[in-house]
Amino acid sequence: MKLKPIGVVKSPYKSREEAPRQGVDREEVSTLSFYDKEHVDRIRGSRRLRLLYWMHLANRATLWSEKKKRGVFATRSPDRPNPIAVAVVEVLKTQDKKALVKHLDAIDGAPILDASPCY
Amino acid sequence: MKLKPIGVVKSPYKSREEAPRQGVDREEVSTLSFYDKEHVDRIRGSRRLRLLYWMHLANRATLWSEKKKRGVFATRSPDRPNPIAVAVVEVLKTQDKKALVKHLDAIDGAPILDASPCY
Repeated sequence: MKLKPIGVVKSPYKSREEAPRQGVDREEVSTLSFYDKEHVDRIRGSRRLRLLYWMHLANRATLWSEKKKRGVFATRSPDRPNPIAVAVVEVLKTQDKKALVKHLDAIDGAPILDASPCY
Repeated sequence: MKLKPIGVVKSPYKSREEAPRQGVDREEVSTLSFYDKEHVDRIRGSRRLRLLYWMHLANRATLWSEKKKRGVFATRSPDRPNPIAVAVVEVLKTQDKKALVKHLDAIDGAPILDASPCY
């Protein structure tokens, strides 16, 4: 089961420390840069997207038991066997192979796995 | 980017035709069979889970343009480059390495990628 990225996130957040806990609280704009124009055509006209992306800076080897020690917030930790994030974002604009979005918590360079209109 | 399944779904739905469009409409019980007891410990006491699973019977090679022809429902199609499904399920019981859940639309044999408490 190998993932095939369909694009990459260009984000103002360059590290785990800079990224917000929840993107919905923030106004920063990120760019979804798709590899294929068809992906953009598919979401054109949608004001909201459900995005799946790969948390590429996560530590996949972290033991669950270590996380338990960190308490309830651990459940939102990116350190998990399959660091896939689910985000709902607002689309500001689409152009060529790109979409400008708000409320995304992804770190710069995160591979995009899926994007679908969200109502 | 290779996925590491953390368990497998045992479901009454054996084919794409049998699976419901939305699990929330159905009362059937599925079993999440985890490979590691720690995954069950981590979700014990949670009434709802957010589950990520791999839609193993999907056709990853389907062209987006073919899907467009099928209209708006195509956005919910499992046929996509990364067939990862997001489901919110109700936990009925946990025991040993297993969790019994309701409202899951997964087909029997689907690899579990992630499970986290959902409030």
